[in-house]
Amino acid sequence: MKIYCSKDALLTGVNTVQKAVSNKNTLPVLQGILIKAENNTLIFEATDMEIGIRCSVTAQIEREGVIVLPARLFSEIVRKLPDATIEIEQRDDSINIHYYQSDIVLKGFDPDEFPLLPDLYDAVSFNLPISLFKTMIRQTVFACAVEENRPVVFTGTLLQIEGSNIRLVATDTHRLAYRISEIENPEDLKFYGVIPAKTMSEIYRLLKDEDEILTIRFNQSQISFQFGSVHLLSRLIDGQFPNYKQVIPQSCQSKVFIASKTFSDSVERASLLARDSIHANIVRLSLEKENLWIAQASEVGKISEQMDIKMEGTEVKVAFNAKFLLDVLKVIDSEEIIIELSGPYGPGIIRPIDDPNYLYLVLPVRTS
Amino acid sequence: MKIYCSKDALLTGVNTVQKAVSNKNTLPVLQGILIKAENNTLIFEATDMEIGIRCSVTAQIEREGVIVLPARLFSEIVRKLPDATIEIEQRDDSINIHYYQSDIVLKGFDPDEFPLLPDLYDAVSFNLPISLFKTMIRQTVFACAVEENRPVVFTGTLLQIEGSNIRLVATDTHRLAYRISEIENPEDLKFYGVIPAKTMSEIYRLLKDEDEILTIRFNQSQISFQFGSVHLLSRLIDGQFPNYKQVIPQSCQSKVFIASKTFSDSVERASLLARDSIHANIVRLSLEKENLWIAQASEVGKISEQMDIKMEGTEVKVAFNAKFLLDVLKVIDSEEIIIELSGPYGPGIIRPIDDPNYLYLVLPVRTS
Repeated sequence: MKIYCSKDALLTGVNTVQKAVSNKNTLPVLQGILIKAENNTLIFEATDMEIGIRCSVTAQIEREGVIVLPARLFSEIVRKLPDATIEIEQRDDSINIHYYQSDIVLKGFDPDEFPLLPDLYDAVSFNLPISLFKTMIRQTVFACAVEENRPVVFTGTLLQIEGSNIRLVATDTHRLAYRISEIENPEDLKFYGVIPAKTMSEIYRLLKDEDEILTIRFNQSQISFQFGSVHLLSRLIDGQFPNYKQVIPQSCQSKVFIASKTFSDSVERASLLARDSIHANIVRLSLEKENLWIAQASEVGKISEQMDIKMEGTEVKVAFNAKFLLDVLKVIDSEEIIIELSGPYGPGIIRPIDDPNYLYLVLPVRTS
Repeated sequence: MKIYCSKDALLTGVNTVQKAVSNKNTLPVLQGILIKAENNTLIFEATDMEIGIRCSVTAQIEREGVIVLPARLFSEIVRKLPDATIEIEQRDDSINIHYYQSDIVLKGFDPDEFPLLPDLYDAVSFNLPISLFKTMIRQTVFACAVEENRPVVFTGTLLQIEGSNIRLVATDTHRLAYRISEIENPEDLKFYGVIPAKTMSEIYRLLKDEDEILTIRFNQSQISFQFGSVHLLSRLIDGQFPNYKQVIPQSCQSKVFIASKTFSDSVERASLLARDSIHANIVRLSLEKENLWIAQASEVGKISEQMDIKMEGTEVKVAFNAKFLLDVLKVIDSEEIIIELSGPYGPGIIRPIDDPNYLYLVLPVRTS
């Protein structure tokens, strides 16, 4: 391999694939980035066997070739390179990086040991506007379970394509985030699979608003996302995702209309007074006579906040984990929200006032 | 106590004193901030017995009083308060924070247990432009020792006032940073004391460029800094500071004139190739025929960088710890620097080309 390219092109390459590099002590070659010079592009590829990312950047290729370089060191070097034309030349199992009057020689790994990303045979494909999918991910992925002792299916997001609808659903069994959107589906494709949260977060990070169309391909066990010059491949999670339709209630006893920021600021303050082991970040809501009260008391002090609201239905007292409320308030862009309650033991539903396609369900905490 | 003030005033108070709050598990009251309403100001005070900070903010005082509040919780609450007029009212050993239709009650500590900052009796005082002192701190404090197993005198900065000169000197025995400035000293005050690095960093953080004059007071064991509405008191470190005049060489064998950024970028890249236990971040410089070479080789690869320079004197090869070079390059604002070398075993001196009042000495590393 002998190539010339800009520092920025190299930086785009390493930044795009770096999150797929394995940070476990598995095969040394998996801690590397594969770099392949082919036609007029330089291809970067990394995988930890769960997720794989490939991307290509423009380069002037004088001689084709392929090598695997240690990811962390190579990324750090690329970040520190001057803004100049960089020459990279392969010599046996090393590369020489040349700029100005300087040279860096880096030892590589054998590319034959690197597991190439498979193409998805028998896969069907599907197009989606990128801005829509970014919003959908942002509003759901945070509700995935992070605890490692939970069934693995809760560490992923359900993607469902059915008729003219696409849905993302995530739940850690304490709360559930649900987003539906209309799409064009002329071939009437169907998909139902659980994608690891890490994959979803990585797609979110890599999707650029200037890229317009995302192509999704899938088969029984894998899913791939193609956008701009990036190709991301991920395994799907095995297991039965809970039936979200059964969980979401169709009616409620009380309905609160409140400014999102007012509610969020109050819950944040109340959670400061609930930060001991007994109160476990729980805040108490009570709804009475066009007022919403948020309160908590602990060893260190107590808080009582009163907010003017519009309400429908019956008065109620109910307690929630403050984190579960604050998480969703960060991803709702609407200035006003609706909170639907069904007594002290029924789930709470939070929705943006202007978007019927999103809802968030949170289970209450039973307090003595 | 009963007072009214803005959220911003409270925030200024807690942010100013927070670094003096003890984070060790000593007396519970030392994990608090003392708040005193007096005349037309609200005074904040915190101390960990090594350093103490007091500051005052404007408030409308309806009833005077004093209380100690848990620092961390009170700071977090203040940060989350709305931008409104806040009413704080003391009720026995608690305070009530009132805003809109909401109340927070916080339990406090007995202010009688709080060690008040002493005034410096028998102290002489001294004025200094703030922008000058900020620069002096920034260019020296980083060279203090951080290791806890070093003699404690190396964890401080020497402040010397003598005739019309003020000096700050810091050293961890591997390198030494020295800054001298001209001052007005009409009363011919003398001072020679070692100030903890934590104190220096804290003064640097708190000094605002819009405050113009810093007043320093000192006696045998303590030093105080007064600026704007802030008063910072610190103990001095006991022990004999090394004689910096003996250490700084008066001549050199080789002199290099080089662009600061060019040199810094090269050292950064070379240090990436020296990050294993054997090479311990060491980079090798060699000076020959109007060229400076920086090189390093380790298991993972090697680097060789050549830079055009102006030089005087003899050719030389010498090795340094890259961190010690990079640290000083961050605080020299000059675009060009002078590096003075005296053979492979003599210290290196780095100076900004346009400022004779600063120098940095770094010992070489003996390499086999």
